[in-house]
Parts: sequence; C-alpha cells; structure tokens
Amino acid sequence: MRCEVVAVGTELLLGQIVDTNSSWIGEQLAAVGIDSLFQTKVGDNAGRIRSALDLALSRSEAVIVCGGLGPTQDDITRDVIADLMGVDLVRDDAIASLIESMFAARGRTMPLSNLRQADVPVGASTMEQQPGTAPGLVCPIGEIDERGFSAKVIYAVPGVPSEMRQMVSGTVLPDLCRRAGETSVIASRVLRTWGQSESALAEMLADRIVELDALGHATLAFLASGVEGLKVRITAKGATDAEVADVLDAEEIVVRDVVGDIVFGVDADTMESVVLGQLGYAGLTLAVAESATGGYIAARLSAAAGALDAFAGGVVAPTHQALASLVGLSRDVGSTAEEVAVAVRRSLGAAVGLAVVGGEPVAAPSTGGRDSVTITVAIALGDAVEEFSIQVPADTDRLRQYTCISALDRLRRTI
Amino acid sequence: MRCEVVAVGTELLLGQIVDTNSSWIGEQLAAVGIDSLFQTKVGDNAGRIRSALDLALSRSEAVIVCGGLGPTQDDITRDVIADLMGVDLVRDDAIASLIESMFAARGRTMPLSNLRQADVPVGASTMEQQPGTAPGLVCPIGEIDERGFSAKVIYAVPGVPSEMRQMVSGTVLPDLCRRAGETSVIASRVLRTWGQSESALAEMLADRIVELDALGHATLAFLASGVEGLKVRITAKGATDAEVADVLDAEEIVVRDVVGDIVFGVDADTMESVVLGQLGYAGLTLAVAESATGGYIAARLSAAAGALDAFAGGVVAPTHQALASLVGLSRDVGSTAEEVAVAVRRSLGAAVGLAVVGGEPVAAPSTGGRDSVTITVAIALGDAVEEFSIQVPADTDRLRQYTCISALDRLRRTI
Repeated sequence: MRCEVVAVGTELLLGQIVDTNSSWIGEQLAAVGIDSLFQTKVGDNAGRIRSALDLALSRSEAVIVCGGLGPTQDDITRDVIADLMGVDLVRDDAIASLIESMFAARGRTMPLSNLRQADVPVGASTMEQQPGTAPGLVCPIGEIDERGFSAKVIYAVPGVPSEMRQMVSGTVLPDLCRRAGETSVIASRVLRTWGQSESALAEMLADRIVELDALGHATLAFLASGVEGLKVRITAKGATDAEVADVLDAEEIVVRDVVGDIVFGVDADTMESVVLGQLGYAGLTLAVAESATGGYIAARLSAAAGALDAFAGGVVAPTHQALASLVGLSRDVGSTAEEVAVAVRRSLGAAVGLAVVGGEPVAAPSTGGRDSVTITVAIALGDAVEEFSIQVPADTDRLRQYTCISALDRLRRTI
Repeated sequence: MRCEVVAVGTELLLGQIVDTNSSWIGEQLAAVGIDSLFQTKVGDNAGRIRSALDLALSRSEAVIVCGGLGPTQDDITRDVIADLMGVDLVRDDAIASLIESMFAARGRTMPLSNLRQADVPVGASTMEQQPGTAPGLVCPIGEIDERGFSAKVIYAVPGVPSEMRQMVSGTVLPDLCRRAGETSVIASRVLRTWGQSESALAEMLADRIVELDALGHATLAFLASGVEGLKVRITAKGATDAEVADVLDAEEIVVRDVVGDIVFGVDADTMESVVLGQLGYAGLTLAVAESATGGYIAARLSAAAGALDAFAGGVVAPTHQALASLVGLSRDVGSTAEEVAVAVRRSLGAAVGLAVVGGEPVAAPSTGGRDSVTITVAIALGDAVEEFSIQVPADTDRLRQYTCISALDRLRRTI
C-alpha cells in the first residue's frame, strides 16, 4: 500500500511557511507500514493541484491532500477533487449548521463564504473529527471492489496542523490500514534514548531484531531526532488493542533490558518533562543558574509538563562571576560551579540546584563550525554536590541543546 | 522562467528531518522573480529520483536537486543525473585533492568512498563554493542555444543547509537570472515590521505599489513570518550592484516614510538583535525578570548578536511573588511589576530593567486553544518606569513569542 502526500498552498512554495505537515504524516504512515514514496508541494492553482493529484493517484493507491479547504477564494481543493471525481459539490446541511453554531458560540458573525466548507463532493464522506470549521473528506476514486473499497482514495484534510493531525490519526490511518487488508491493530511506542550512537544502539539490539523477524509480531526501528537523542520505535500488530498493548509492554521491557538506562522517556516525553516528573514525584523542586546557556534551560523547563510542581526558577548572567554575584556569592572571590549550584538552590528555596557555566558565556550565534567548547555542570542535591565537564559544539544553538539535555540527563540519573 | 525543487532523502519522507531547504530556496527564487510551481520530496531510490527529475524537467526550465551528494552508498544523485544526461562520471582530480586536503587539515583519515564526491558527469561544471566536501554541480540538459545556454539545467546541491545556501546564493541564483535573460542585477531588502496587520500594511502602501508598477524599477511584497510580524520585501533591478543598492536605499526611505516606526529592522535583524544594538550603542545594559515567559526572553536575548555588550542577565520564577523575592523585594508585600523591573535592574547592576509577569505563571503547554491571557510588562529606564498590559494567546508557545516581541518592541520605542 502506497500513500503520497500533496501539500497545497502557494505560501509553502514561497517559503513563507515550512511544510511540516508532510513530515508528520510521513512519520505516521511509516509507523503503520505504509510507503510514502513521493511528497509534493503545489500552489493554490486548480490545474496544478489537479495534475499533482492525478500523478499521485497514478503511482499510489492513496493520496492525502493537506490544505485548501478553508473559506477563502484561494481554497479550491474540494472543487478540484469534485472535478477529478466527475461529480458535483452538494452542501451538507448538518455540517453547515455545525459551522454556523461554531461561529455563534464564539459570538462572531459568520461570513457567508464559510458555508463553502460544508460542500461535499457527491460520493465522498466527511471525517468525524471536526476541530475547526472545515471537515475532512474521504473521496473514493475508481471501481468499488468486493470488500466495498474503491480502487483508490483521496483524503482531504485542512492545513492547520492540529486539525490535520486529529483527522489523520482518527480517520485516515485506520481507513488506510483497513484498505491495506490489515485487519489487525497496529500501534507503536517510541522509547527515547540519550547517550549512544545509532550504530551502537543497532549493535546492542541486533540479536533482538533477528529474533523479532522470526517471531513476526513486532518490529524495531531507529529514528534520529536531531541532537535530542535517538528513538527506538517498537511497532506491534495484534487482533485487538489489548493484545497490541501487551506486545508493546512486553517488548518495551525487553528493549529496556538490553539498552539499559539510556532510555529516558516514552512517546511524547521530553528530557525536561521526565526530570520534572521525577522531581515532582519525589516532592523536590529545581533551581537553575545559567551562564553558558543564557536561560535556555529555564525556558525549556518552564514550558514542560510538570513545571508548575517542580520548577522553582532560575537566574541567568553572561559570566560566571555575574552569575555568582546574582545568587549572593561574593564578586571578589572566584567561586566554583558547585558553589553556584548550592547558592541558586538557596536563592530560590529549592531542593535541587543546577549550575551551567563556561563555554563562550553568552555568545552571538556562530556560523556552525566544528569547534567544541567545555561546559561545567554542577548539581547540588541534598548534601551531595557533583561537578563535571562536557564537551559540546561551539555554535550557539547546538551548545544550548547539547548542554541542556546532557545536564538534565545527569540530573535524571542522580535523582 | 520556472524552477522546481527536488529534495532527495528517505529521511525526509519518513519525517525524521523536515525539509526546510525547499522552503528557503522557494523564498530566494520568488525574490528574483522565478516561479517555483512544484516542489517534490523523494527517497534515496534511483528510479524515483530519475522520475522526479524527468517530470520536473518536463514542466520547468530548471531544477534544483538538494541532497544525495554525500559519500555513502545512499548518495546517488550524481549517478542519476549522469544517467539522465547519458554521460559518464569522471573523477575531477582537483576536487579529489581538495577533499583529501580537507580531511588532512582536520587530522582525519579519509575513507576512500569520499572520493566519489569528486566524480562529475561529463559536460557538467562544478560550483565555486565548496564549504563541505561535496561540490555542487551545474548540469546542462538539451540543446545549447545561441547565447550558449542549454535548453534546461539541473543544479545539484548538498542537503546540508549551510552548504546548500552558499551554492544557491553564489552560483544557482545568478545563473538562473542570466538564463532568464535577466542581464540586470536583482536584489532584495526586507523591512521587518511589528504592530500592523497585513491588510493594514497593504492599504498604507497601496498607492506606492501603483506608482512602482508604473516606474518598473522596484516592487514591494508582503511576507508573513508567523507571530514575528510582517516583512515588506523591496526588490529592485538595475544595471549594476551600485545602482540596485541606490534603488533599495531610496525605496527603503519611501516605505519607512509611509509606514513609520513599525519598521524595527532590516533583513536578518531580529527584534532582540535590534534592541540589544540600540542598548549597546547607548552604552546601556538590560536585565529581565520573567514569570509569564519562564526564561524565554532571556534565552532569546542571550543568543542574539549584541548580547555580550548589552545583556546583563535575568531572573526567572514561576510566580510574581517568587520573582519579587528573588530580586530582593519582600515576599510578604504585594509588589508591582514596576517594582520588579526596578529591582531586577539593581540586582544585575544594569541600566534598564524589564519585568514580564502575569498570565498563567509557568504553564504546561496548552492545546492551542483560542483563549487569551493578560500579561503585565514593566520597563524601568533611568528615572522613568512605565507599566502596561497586553493580551496574548494562552497557549505556551504563542504566549511567549507574542509577549517577547511586544515587550521588546516597546523597549525599542522607549530607548
């Protein structure tokens, strides 16, 4: 089963918006074993949208088209699909009422053009999820087979990422799996790891991958996620949700057993949400002092789930000395990172102190060279204070990301 | 002149990497008046790369193919192009020596496979820029016309963004402009604005756009950049670089005259780099106190150009009270944002204090709803302290971005 993605919008071609939708959909398709061999961006032009859809249908059994379902004149995806299907658009009264009531609930006057979003090509069905005003469409193309499926299918979803995601997860993926003759349930779980290279992970899990090939009920895959570590994705098949969940649970135990505590989280966990969760569970709070990372660690911690319970705050200064002074240490005496970690904990009345100093203190963005710098990290927890150094890339963005995830990973292991 | 973009890499289809290259290239092409009507992602598969290139060449005069030029077995773009051209690959000794010397300079042993990157299709030329080990290729396709140009052309550039950008700016865009018969120089300047809607900006500049249509030497376009304001792009044509620079300078004055001080910067300027530049110029330093934004403003300021001169540091706490306490105000007495702004300035020995409080103090990411919250911002500068409120979206990301840019914009106007 192949499914292409066509992202519609002139603003995508002009680079005003980066097409992240196709990437996300590609990841979801891969997780359920569906190949996505081409992904295309095309502008708001009927002829070119049509040619992109025709081409995609000629190569693949399914096409997900994102965008162009809105209320404005530019939004012509549904018209192009009706034309391609050779059918009319008919207004769906139930959807029209729903759109009207969504405007009414917000106390806003509805421009009449919004009702265009209730127009559905004859023969198409709408998706159950309707987080926004534009419904998604399931559009059968070609002959209907003995199972009741059309030869091909176009799924039209909005370009708004949150709306698109609900529809793809809720309707498109399950429908694709049924069409693929996949009567079993497929689900994935991602184990997030930090501290090993992809080749090292692959070597550790090589035997298990061979075993799973023979067993056939689950697969493992490695996914890079930038400097945020590597993901091990477990995908399982089974007759029921419960059976799949059991396979995932069992396989998670096997993988954790092999790779050890480099696994820091599961699925949507981030390093910061995991550390804050641990701290919250233990009834501890964390204070951070940053010169090397300029507030980046505080900004990530404060945005994460669990921040309200476990993040006590932070201080930021451009130099180690200014940082020490800010947490009440004398400006005249050279203070260590350990002392800063202890002092910031006191300043914020927190249980744990984390200090991150060194590197280029607060630097202008460098040009992405290959140089590295040394950062000193200190963690004060109870009576124990530990200090260690890490080598990180010198350019500002990667310096911050590496330092943040390295420091929090050590904290995770320390708690 | 039409130029499509083909991004090569299975990791792009799988969503492991978001294809930002095509977006950036699309923006550059638009700026020099070249249409990019389709952009395609395709995996590391010879047949499918070939079919994507064939199709793109059938629709457009030029194709930029990004990625697949590296040293590994997966990197097959140059082989596919040679096949499409019907020619052999021949090793370029000068490039091979250059690659060897790049490894030697870094004290690393060169895997022999790296020399594949010196293979060039017969008839193709290489690009002058070689920031990495893989050279870019200019590959003529079809008959050569009386001007010496081939009917069509494929440009192959690496997928590494920094390398790709150098080659596209340095070789591809100038070559495309020559092919388009564009003997004049084309250049753009972007004015960044904050505080007006796109329709309001368009209305303000409507008359000037009509005038420019008649004059023909420059154009104006509006580009959205998320919550970071709107860009007004001036594009000018002229016989020489100097002439174009003069047109851009003159037009910048006209536009600034019309839209006023909503212009906060030019080209690569950000709100934070502009504010830090102003502060540095005036010999002032800035200290920030954040509860509402959790360190986000400090993180952005500290990463910007000018931070070393003008950013004194910051403090972060989850609540207004904890923040006040951290800067030495009594925990028992309710303190105002103004008092916090004055106190953080004193704590960090800075000339200017900025306090940002209110909203959901330090919140878990919300689900992107339409609610808004009130944030209080205070700026202490010399004897003057001003305080004001802003309404911002309630979800964490947009709350931070709106608050940051709003607060810094006010600071920019105050200094």
